[in-house]
Amino acid sequence: MQAYLPEELANGISRGDLVALSKSITLIESAKKDYRAIGESILSLCKTQNRDAVRIGVTGVPGVGKSTFIETFGLHLIEKGHKVAVLAIDPSSKKSGGSILGDKTRMHSLSVHPMAFIRPSAAGITLGGVAARTKEIILLCEAAGYDRIIIETVGVGQSETAVKEMCDVFLLLMLSGAGDDLQGIKRGIMEMSDILVITKADGDNITKAKLAAAQYKQALHLMPAHEADWVVPVLTCSATEGIGINQVSNHLDSFIRNAKIKGWFIENRKQQNKTCLDQAILNYLSLQVSAKTMNSDYLKQVEEGELLPHEFIKQFLL
Amino acid sequence: MQAYLPEELANGISRGDLVALSKSITLIESAKKDYRAIGESILSLCKTQNRDAVRIGVTGVPGVGKSTFIETFGLHLIEKGHKVAVLAIDPSSKKSGGSILGDKTRMHSLSVHPMAFIRPSAAGITLGGVAARTKEIILLCEAAGYDRIIIETVGVGQSETAVKEMCDVFLLLMLSGAGDDLQGIKRGIMEMSDILVITKADGDNITKAKLAAAQYKQALHLMPAHEADWVVPVLTCSATEGIGINQVSNHLDSFIRNAKIKGWFIENRKQQNKTCLDQAILNYLSLQVSAKTMNSDYLKQVEEGELLPHEFIKQFLL
Repeated sequence: MQAYLPEELANGISRGDLVALSKSITLIESAKKDYRAIGESILSLCKTQNRDAVRIGVTGVPGVGKSTFIETFGLHLIEKGHKVAVLAIDPSSKKSGGSILGDKTRMHSLSVHPMAFIRPSAAGITLGGVAARTKEIILLCEAAGYDRIIIETVGVGQSETAVKEMCDVFLLLMLSGAGDDLQGIKRGIMEMSDILVITKADGDNITKAKLAAAQYKQALHLMPAHEADWVVPVLTCSATEGIGINQVSNHLDSFIRNAKIKGWFIENRKQQNKTCLDQAILNYLSLQVSAKTMNSDYLKQVEEGELLPHEFIKQFLL
Repeated sequence: MQAYLPEELANGISRGDLVALSKSITLIESAKKDYRAIGESILSLCKTQNRDAVRIGVTGVPGVGKSTFIETFGLHLIEKGHKVAVLAIDPSSKKSGGSILGDKTRMHSLSVHPMAFIRPSAAGITLGGVAARTKEIILLCEAAGYDRIIIETVGVGQSETAVKEMCDVFLLLMLSGAGDDLQGIKRGIMEMSDILVITKADGDNITKAKLAAAQYKQALHLMPAHEADWVVPVLTCSATEGIGINQVSNHLDSFIRNAKIKGWFIENRKQQNKTCLDQAILNYLSLQVSAKTMNSDYLKQVEEGELLPHEFIKQFLL
């Protein structure tokens, strides 16, 4: 990797060169300290403040049609003049590529489009690590001129919270089987979503989807108010038939416009940057407090309440 | 404070001596490093594993009747043979005692009961600090034989999340004005509650309260499933007339029984202990990375995205 000069790759990225972007992401994701350091240098050189870029989180249980939705929605955004990057956070992708190769295949039209960039998530990293790196990859994509970043997550476990913490707007995709399809979603996520979209609203499914939308609208009325003074819309769409995609896009634009007017957009980004630093410090320290102390019986003792936090700190950090 | 020998105070606590407990809490809460160190020694000496103690979080907007509910509910728990401690997390209590003095006055019968211990929250500490100390105070109370710990929070801002992270069961109190009363509650909290209680269900309000309960029940049906495989009940009660308190108590017992059978109770405590360590490490490090770097322009630069986490770490921690 001697050949990779940070300045060269950073310049490539700012010209929108896909090879430079891909290589830089690989360096950022590298488990090797030296490569990772080059990646960080590139990141520092690329630092831009593209305040117009929008980071869009998309979640939903397996089978809800995330890839199909993102393919259609991504092409729609490109038609509107945007450059679209699609990233994925998938902590389950450890096993031989996982759903990632599938994604590229399923998003065929989008993946070959010159205005789109689809990046599989790196396998074999812990969720905390994936989240930190995805945030950095977002910054690289924005430096390369992508102004709509879609971050997809499988919607199980802790990944939604991680995605929520790096997005400006959060879309929850649902099936029309009111309630049933949410059983795999983490609690708290529905209440934290900015836009609800019921997918596969086509053919015989249209009536069912509209009924479900009405029920969810009613239910949301009883939930706490959105921080950005926003009424969460419940939409229906069919990605395969292209129905309702325009509506999702309009509501997304309204959300961003409203969030910027209310000051929530900037406040949210500030908060996210602070959280990101906290996590980076914690990750850094975890490495310092060697694998021995963090992964062994000590951590088990902490879990069991036998070793209190102040005792742990006294023993390993003072 | 020379007179405060950790062993003496720890012995006092295990005998259930209220003076020893109060003094130890004051030491734990102290901003002075020496006093705090004595407090930590007491904590280490008191470490017990009272697996039968239950930590109950209670939240709701101001005016929902938290104090009245806790007074009646606390007395009910005492009648059932428990020793009850009431703690409060109130980040807004910086101003001259805040709602805390009010709490003691409002919970008159409970505060003078020999089987109850009401502790106002310490003023003037940041939320992170309050949360960590409250967790330690819970441990001291349990060592003193209190087996039902009620942690009250004002229900605005970030305090609910902090309380949720130290409780076994989380109660959300609501008024009967379906939806309206939740406007002050943080998003995500309703979906994370284990039991919903509509308060002030007495007199002319009974019908309204029952209607609201039915609506919430319907709405909850559309939310993601509870981790502990638990159907969140929506109850109504009147603390002033003592109606429905028994029902709340029974559902709470069912929840704990179910959570223990499903293994969720222990898993949740383990997770909480781990989170607590993470926060303690972060707090400790924040102090190490001197006030200069954390509170000044550097943090602002991080918020603005001008200083990236890896740059911050390189600059201040390496």
